[in-house]
Amino acid sequence: MDKHLMRETILEAKRQKGVSWESLGKATGMSPVFICSACLGENSMELEQAKALAGALDLGDDIASILTEYPNKGQRAAEMITDPLVYRLNEVVMVYGETLKEVIQEKFGDGIMSAIDFTMDVDKQEDPKGDRVILTLNGKFLPYKRW
Amino acid sequence: MDKHLMRETILEAKRQKGVSWESLGKATGMSPVFICSACLGENSMELEQAKALAGALDLGDDIASILTEYPNKGQRAAEMITDPLVYRLNEVVMVYGETLKEVIQEKFGDGIMSAIDFTMDVDKQEDPKGDRVILTLNGKFLPYKRW
Amino acid sequence: MDKHLMRETILEAKRQKGVSWESLGKATGMSPVFICSACLGENSMELEQAKALAGALDLGDDIASILTEYPNKGQRAAEMITDPLVYRLNEVVMVYGETLKEVIQEKFGDGIMSAIDFTMDVDKQEDPKGDRVILTLNGKFLPYKRW
Amino acid sequence: MDKHLMRETILEAKRQKGVSWESLGKATGMSPVFICSACLGENSMELEQAKALAGALDLGDDIASILTEYPNKGQRAAEMITDPLVYRLNEVVMVYGETLKEVIQEKFGDGIMSAIDFTMDVDKQEDPKGDRVILTLNGKFLPYKRW
Amino acid sequence: MDKHLMRETILEAKRQKGVSWESLGKATGMSPVFICSACLGENSMELEQAKALAGALDLGDDIASILTEYPNKGQRAAEMITDPLVYRLNEVVMVYGETLKEVIQEKFGDGIMSAIDFTMDVDKQEDPKGDRVILTLNGKFLPYKRW
Amino acid sequence: MDKHLMRETILEAKRQKGVSWESLGKATGMSPVFICSACLGENSMELEQAKALAGALDLGDDIASILTEYPNKGQRAAEMITDPLVYRLNEVVMVYGETLKEVIQEKFGDGIMSAIDFTMDVDKQEDPKGDRVILTLNGKFLPYKRW
Amino acid sequence: MDKHLMRETILEAKRQKGVSWESLGKATGMSPVFICSACLGENSMELEQAKALAGALDLGDDIASILTEYPNKGQRAAEMITDPLVYRLNEVVMVYGETLKEVIQEKFGDGIMSAIDFTMDVDKQEDPKGDRVILTLNGKFLPYKRW
Amino acid sequence: MDKHLMRETILEAKRQKGVSWESLGKATGMSPVFICSACLGENSMELEQAKALAGALDLGDDIASILTEYPNKGQRAAEMITDPLVYRLNEVVMVYGETLKEVIQEKFGDGIMSAIDFTMDVDKQEDPKGDRVILTLNGKFLPYKRW
Amino acid sequence: MDKHLMRETILEAKRQKGVSWESLGKATGMSPVFICSACLGENSMELEQAKALAGALDLGDDIASILTEYPNKGQRAAEMITDPLVYRLNEVVMVYGETLKEVIQEKFGDGIMSAIDFTMDVDKQEDPKGDRVILTLNGKFLPYKRW
Amino acid sequence: MDKHLMRETILEAKRQKGVSWESLGKATGMSPVFICSACLGENSMELEQAKALAGALDLGDDIASILTEYPNKGQRAAEMITDPLVYRLNEVVMVYGETLKEVIQEKFGDGIMSAIDFTMDVDKQEDPKGDRVILTLNGKFLPYKRW
Repeated sequence: MDKHLMRETILEAKRQKGVSWESLGKATGMSPVFICSACLGENSMELEQAKALAGALDLGDDIASILTEYPNKGQRAAEMITDPLVYRLNEVVMVYGETLKEVIQEKFGDGIMSAIDFTMDVDKQEDPKGDRVILTLNGKFLPYKRW
Repeated sequence: MDKHLMRETILEAKRQKGVSWESLGKATGMSPVFICSACLGENSMELEQAKALAGALDLGDDIASILTEYPNKGQRAAEMITDPLVYRLNEVVMVYGETLKEVIQEKFGDGIMSAIDFTMDVDKQEDPKGDRVILTLNGKFLPYKRW
Repeated sequence: MDKHLMRETILEAKRQKGVSWESLGKATGMSPVFICSACLGENSMELEQAKALAGALDLGDDIASILTEYPNKGQRAAEMITDPLVYRLNEVVMVYGETLKEVIQEKFGDGIMSAIDFTMDVDKQEDPKGDRVILTLNGKFLPYKRW
Repeated sequence: MDKHLMRETILEAKRQKGVSWESLGKATGMSPVFICSACLGENSMELEQAKALAGALDLGDDIASILTEYPNKGQRAAEMITDPLVYRLNEVVMVYGETLKEVIQEKFGDGIMSAIDFTMDVDKQEDPKGDRVILTLNGKFLPYKRW
Repeated sequence: MDKHLMRETILEAKRQKGVSWESLGKATGMSPVFICSACLGENSMELEQAKALAGALDLGDDIASILTEYPNKGQRAAEMITDPLVYRLNEVVMVYGETLKEVIQEKFGDGIMSAIDFTMDVDKQEDPKGDRVILTLNGKFLPYKRW
Repeated sequence: MDKHLMRETILEAKRQKGVSWESLGKATGMSPVFICSACLGENSMELEQAKALAGALDLGDDIASILTEYPNKGQRAAEMITDPLVYRLNEVVMVYGETLKEVIQEKFGDGIMSAIDFTMDVDKQEDPKGDRVILTLNGKFLPYKRW
Repeated sequence: MDKHLMRETILEAKRQKGVSWESLGKATGMSPVFICSACLGENSMELEQAKALAGALDLGDDIASILTEYPNKGQRAAEMITDPLVYRLNEVVMVYGETLKEVIQEKFGDGIMSAIDFTMDVDKQEDPKGDRVILTLNGKFLPYKRW
Repeated sequence: MDKHLMRETILEAKRQKGVSWESLGKATGMSPVFICSACLGENSMELEQAKALAGALDLGDDIASILTEYPNKGQRAAEMITDPLVYRLNEVVMVYGETLKEVIQEKFGDGIMSAIDFTMDVDKQEDPKGDRVILTLNGKFLPYKRW
Repeated sequence: MDKHLMRETILEAKRQKGVSWESLGKATGMSPVFICSACLGENSMELEQAKALAGALDLGDDIASILTEYPNKGQRAAEMITDPLVYRLNEVVMVYGETLKEVIQEKFGDGIMSAIDFTMDVDKQEDPKGDRVILTLNGKFLPYKRW
Repeated sequence: MDKHLMRETILEAKRQKGVSWESLGKATGMSPVFICSACLGENSMELEQAKALAGALDLGDDIASILTEYPNKGQRAAEMITDPLVYRLNEVVMVYGETLKEVIQEKFGDGIMSAIDFTMDVDKQEDPKGDRVILTLNGKFLPYKRW
């Protein structure tokens, strides 16, 4: 059992049970984004979290155990970058990267937004002209150390 | 006068006047993120917007005129990608790209979040354990056409 | 059953039955280009479309079901780019990309042609000096948001 | 005088006179797409075409002469590929490249659509749900030689 | 049966029978270069050609059938480029590419040598100082369309 | 005076005098392909050759002297590869590289065609269906040493 | 005055005065590594730090002011990677990257060593068999957030 | 048995026994960093070292034997570079590479820090504001030979 | 049986018999470097050479036969380049490439050192300060043809 | 005065005086390869060496001073790699890299040939069948540390 087999097993169980990331989030008290990233093999869970998730999918302790292992992250980045949904996010970084640097530094000083002490949410804003996707990225500001 | 000279002129005027993107936003009724991206040469403004901005910086109509021209976008992407602040955003896409695809599609169906019919905000959330950067991306969902 | 096996199964069934994308289009009321892209694993179908297509090829509901899943797009881009037919299309973008930007923006303003709210047709124009391929790309214009 | 200076001179004259690629096309009997590509330095004109265009912009014979020289094509491809308008065209090739190979070969046999014996038009289709860009690519089919 | 298996089957049969591309060319009335490229999976044959070739190798109709399918071309380009024999050809393009553009355009006008309506021969010129390889590339000149 | 200035000077002189590579070849007894490659800065000449060429263009000894210097070769390869005329040659190597390896080795044994002890000619074959470009590459076969 | 001119000015002043990074560190109470990185344009200083450094080099307030600006980091990475001294550091990451991931995670859990809340020292360990370079990297451990 | 199978076998045995790199280091008298790198297939051990390690994991002589073979190093560099923990180390080289060159050369003269005559340690520094990772790189200085 | 299986078979036989490239060279009268490159699949042998080598390893005629086939060269270049031993050789070319061009051309004129009519030896020079590796590359000088 | 200007000044002085790297080596007691690499900006000299070289070229102390500065190495690697003389050296590494690893490790154990404690010579071996270039690389063997 490794992260790859874990991923396939979870996605198959999720399909068979007809549950959503949203409902798994409600059932386990975790964020759907976080759950999904762990199931795809890009994050690790605490053991209790992993057991709750495996339980919600009627999967066993071996799955829970692998969910707690520390993955190599970004393994599918090259494969996903051609997909239009993912490329648009990349395009935002290409077009607005320098702008975000200017605006974040103006508000916070020299430093970065952490991608580790970090959470993210996806919301749906209904709109008669077409619903909107709201992504909220929430990362701790880390000031550069001067020594 | 081209986008490159416009950019240098605006950044110098902003430095001389000691104004911020935030205050320029308040003075002109536009978003600081949008203003900054247009001044860096990554977005175009309506003529009235451009005149308002040039006015707020005591710059002339030639600057306003160039601000309305349609730029080639993403020109500084390669230069910015080595910067840690920008790389962290890129890392979010590398690590969470597939997750966002899963979660957005679950909520909206097959399609993408537009990076064109799109706005973005940067907020500061004060926190005793360290302030947090809140980025809100707001893009129209575009469903794939089947024909 | 995944998109890869679906693709192989459909291509084999199509070969066995000796049908064309054109005739599958007529039999199901969809565009041959769209059908082909979905069967190759680059688009998803509505369930009724998928059932109609599977039926036309005497394939079962498992194939129809996979046809409705949302694919990762562009997975074969690197493999196809060395092929002269595909490279020529890429060359058109290399040589005429800036021209199309100029001409589209002149006609529509600052924005893009959507590749999502998008259809495409392939036609044959008979010509004694050599038949001609007519590709018609039809995408919604999306103006950049200014905020 | 070289292609680069020619390009800058023509774009400046066009801006000063306030004419469009469309009106230049009408004034000279050529396609706006072709004119634009030649002025950007990606195509060459016949001498009479070049003189007509230079005349329409009140530019001299030196400009006409450079317009007839054979350019190195694709020189700005790397710079344009980050721009969203141009990337969307590239994305169409990434996502639909194999589909177009399948459909064109089904209709025409083994061969390619020429990008040399080739014309292209850009049209605007008005639509209450949002105007649409119609790109028509028209290239001679070239069958592979077997020898 | 696919192009890859076809390739292995043909190369094995050729080795077993001890025949050369040259003798296969004589036996079937086709060029050895063309035959070899089709057998490696880079070109397709007419059905009669394919049957003649399969016959000459005592292979069956399934091989002939696959030989008529339209291949994805250039699939082994990345693998072959490190080989000195192939790199030398690439080096000729690197060193003489601009020269050939100058000389071909001087003789023919603005346009290209087709790589589709194209044949190629390999000959041996005996020479006491060392035999010489003579490659003859023969491609139709295609003038750029101006429209 | 360096290779770059030499190149510009020669191309300008050639344009002013209205001579062709072909006529320069006849005037100096060298191949037009070789002359052109040396003038573009990709080959060096013997001193007598260089003086003959400079003389034919009414240029001085400084140009002749630079023509004899040993250039860095392939300096413009990246710039030329986007040009369709040059790409087609590259495509021939991509599509036929392995074929040429098979056929050359069958005729000559294990080794390569030299790109140093090498000449090349460009000829025009008139044809009512469209003139043809004939490129003849002539390189010494070099067998691999076994030691 | 920008970061590039600042860098040249500081390096020239340092050369003229014959001072070392080490002595600048002692004179200003900062780390030589930090000072050097700020002077090369890869870090920013507090205003008092910047004034102290400019003073130690007899440079003016304009230099101090630019030293406080927030730089784009990593701008010279591509140029430095061919240098053997820098490549060896990169090689350590290539060869020991996975090892460090294993060992750090074993000691600390799932997370990273910060490169922002980070200091570094260079020491010399004298050794009769050849002196040794001791690099000490000191970064805060950041645990992955689970949410 | 090859390095890949050795790696899988060792990692599985380590997991089964529930031992750490740290405790393996204590049991065998080697550095945990060195042991881990050898087990991952990036370093070779002396035979006695290898036997000690295999013994500590209750593995046989075949494992010990493979541990003494000389590996190809850096085989997983491309896979690990997307991981945030490893990227941060790479970022340190990107941001501080030129700084380290300046400071090392100032202290030692023209030369490099060896990555071969090299050791590395990972320590944990407890800190109420967050524990810190201390990496100590220790490499022999090698002066450039002048000859 | 192909080059890949041949390679594995030979390396296994060599390990079982406990022979070295050096002793295989002495047993067969060939250079250890040449033998090793052929066994790794980067060179071909004459039939007698191949039989002698296979005999020395108690391997059969099938191995000898594959050893005489002409390999695709450079197939493992991308895999080996991360290894420090191989990278150092690459670094020599990066650092001294232009120097070697200057010095070879000064001694020989415009041309190259052949990598085909080429031999190479590896020797050990014992030295109390550390043994030295002596690589001797011996290639025929090939002057550029002027035509 | 920087390394770039130093290089141009030295190459011009060498051309004016008509001296060779060989004769400069004799005049100064250094290796022609080392002198050339320092003059091209890829190595640094001791002050006495630098003064001797500058003297031999009738250049002043500013040149000698810059010759002693520590250069960034490998700055022209990308430009030189297209040149056939330099590519052949690279090809040797591509084709024989793994072979050299095998043979060097067999003779010396696990380690590398240093490219820092390293010298290189170029010799001419006269041969009626064509003179031969003899490159001798001489580098200290560095065994991997195990700790």
